[in-house]
Amino acid sequence: MSDTANRRSALGRLLGESGLDALLVTDLINVRYLTGFTGSNAALLISSEGDDRSVFCTDSRYDLQSALEVPDLTRRIDRPCDEVLLTEASGRVGFEARAVSVADHARFLASVGEPQLVDTLDLVEGLRAVKDEGEIDALRTACAVADRALADLIESGGIRPGRTEREVGLDLDERMRRLGASDPAFETIVATGTNSAIPHHRPTSRPLTRGDLLKLDFGAAVAGYHSDMTRTFVLGRAVDWQLEIHALVAAAQSAGRDAAVVGATGAEVDAAARDVITAAGYGPAFAHGLGHGVGLQVHEAPSLARGAAGTIRADMCVTVEPGVYLPGRGGVRIEDSGVVRAPSDTGEAGAGYEVLTLTTRDLVLL
Amino acid sequence: MSDTANRRSALGRLLGESGLDALLVTDLINVRYLTGFTGSNAALLISSEGDDRSVFCTDSRYDLQSALEVPDLTRRIDRPCDEVLLTEASGRVGFEARAVSVADHARFLASVGEPQLVDTLDLVEGLRAVKDEGEIDALRTACAVADRALADLIESGGIRPGRTEREVGLDLDERMRRLGASDPAFETIVATGTNSAIPHHRPTSRPLTRGDLLKLDFGAAVAGYHSDMTRTFVLGRAVDWQLEIHALVAAAQSAGRDAAVVGATGAEVDAAARDVITAAGYGPAFAHGLGHGVGLQVHEAPSLARGAAGTIRADMCVTVEPGVYLPGRGGVRIEDSGVVRAPSDTGEAGAGYEVLTLTTRDLVLL
Repeated sequence: MSDTANRRSALGRLLGESGLDALLVTDLINVRYLTGFTGSNAALLISSEGDDRSVFCTDSRYDLQSALEVPDLTRRIDRPCDEVLLTEASGRVGFEARAVSVADHARFLASVGEPQLVDTLDLVEGLRAVKDEGEIDALRTACAVADRALADLIESGGIRPGRTEREVGLDLDERMRRLGASDPAFETIVATGTNSAIPHHRPTSRPLTRGDLLKLDFGAAVAGYHSDMTRTFVLGRAVDWQLEIHALVAAAQSAGRDAAVVGATGAEVDAAARDVITAAGYGPAFAHGLGHGVGLQVHEAPSLARGAAGTIRADMCVTVEPGVYLPGRGGVRIEDSGVVRAPSDTGEAGAGYEVLTLTTRDLVLL
Repeated sequence: MSDTANRRSALGRLLGESGLDALLVTDLINVRYLTGFTGSNAALLISSEGDDRSVFCTDSRYDLQSALEVPDLTRRIDRPCDEVLLTEASGRVGFEARAVSVADHARFLASVGEPQLVDTLDLVEGLRAVKDEGEIDALRTACAVADRALADLIESGGIRPGRTEREVGLDLDERMRRLGASDPAFETIVATGTNSAIPHHRPTSRPLTRGDLLKLDFGAAVAGYHSDMTRTFVLGRAVDWQLEIHALVAAAQSAGRDAAVVGATGAEVDAAARDVITAAGYGPAFAHGLGHGVGLQVHEAPSLARGAAGTIRADMCVTVEPGVYLPGRGGVRIEDSGVVRAPSDTGEAGAGYEVLTLTTRDLVLL
């Protein structure tokens, strides 16, 4: 059975447990997850009774493409997809309350006779939090593209005094695209000098300067999956305060990776890294959460943060990204993407956080 | 008064006419239109009584940025922005029914006491359809970036046999970025040979070949505004059927531009171009609409298409893009972005469709 068929089967069981006869899937990322379809307009009706009763719909622009990408479901070529599928549904039919606007909902109610519409939250998103091996391979590829692009950038002398943040960001983005990324996973952050103290900074015309910190937070989107990594360098020779906060963040990041195990809560993983920074007296300088799930979206479940009660399960993919930011001076963040592996049947070998971003975390002196 | 203050003032009057005391604006593009704010999280409460009673909200990441971008409104730095603003509102408060999900609406109802929530459709979108001169300048710049990138691509020999569609698209995108585009306005279409018969084609590894049609549909996003243009070339020498459909589409496109005048309906402009193609016997080969508004989104109001009843007003910006597609052979589309100008007080001089995309429409022989 294909990966997407397995996912639909898991969703069908979940629908049965939730007392739903079907789910209307209109979130395009969830449609992609459940079918492999990559176009810009589609909807999907998943029946609790399985693929024989499930239907995919897209418009005529995607007739050929959907035949190739979705060979294993009944297809409708029509508009509007959501209404077409609702007219085929009956019983208690869930819809995705985060993906359906108030205007669309009013349109559903005006056009649909039989089925009883039930709002649902995060049914597919919950499944997506645990990755199958096909997804982990896709994430590994996305991470490799980002790693390779950064290595190429460094080897080609692309990080040098005088270049602006914007030029470095553009160069890195182009390298990722040439290596097969459809796009950067998000707007690449290049932050130098005092800008590195801004957690989310948009590249400016500020030039790289010898002795300054340089923070690069970037990733590649490959075949729909997103990598996310941060490295912080010093151009030239680092001074004591830079060495100190870099070593501290590296230690916190290591503690976070060690704590990312099956059964831990998101809050516990966050605390493991945060405690290292707090103990060194820099607690207030780490104001954001430790990490987040990565996959078809660059930010998805689960959350690793204060108050995150959810438990880590095997094959969840998450970032670990503590930082220390000193306004007016500079900041350091170190971030990996990785997958949390279960203890094997024969013991602990291979269990824990498998890092997918392989670039050295050292404060490389360029 | 600034452009954004003028827009808020126009919206305030519209709210008064609609019997609303305020509008909660949560669509980020509409927030940008009304304030200039470019961050990724914000909401805006526009009062029918004017800026003194209107409030902008974003989160702490954007404190400094919003102070610079939104200097003329009361600002709140808090989360979640929509609820923060609703607690400050009273009376009949509209919300944007296309931008608010069923889940968000339930959250509003659970958290909000006083105001009476009223769903609204396209209040801000209606204002956005008519551009002010600041917006037209921004569109002119976005069009100039696309024009210049294509000229550079051609002059540097970037369009040549053996290069793949994907390589040409990447090259064109990079040139737009280097010229100041934040991004391509949409996924660049490079379609050669029989692929040119597919109206919306995603670039592949198919190589450009002498004698084939080459269709480029692309644009630049600059300062939030989107250009959109299509040119179709032949590599080498064109043969009769290529010359014929290119001349036909060029004539239809010219007729469409001539018909894009103040007071015409979208359907009438569409028909002016479509009639040229239909009279030549190619009617079924032009299956899409003639054009659409461009601005802060690449597709926005108004529509130029069959059944589009809305009337063109002065300073609307629209594309004009007829095509003829012959499956298995090839296709031609020619598209400009432009602004519809009103007759001046002193006569017709300068009235009609002012083209913003300046690249020659000729079937350039490379």
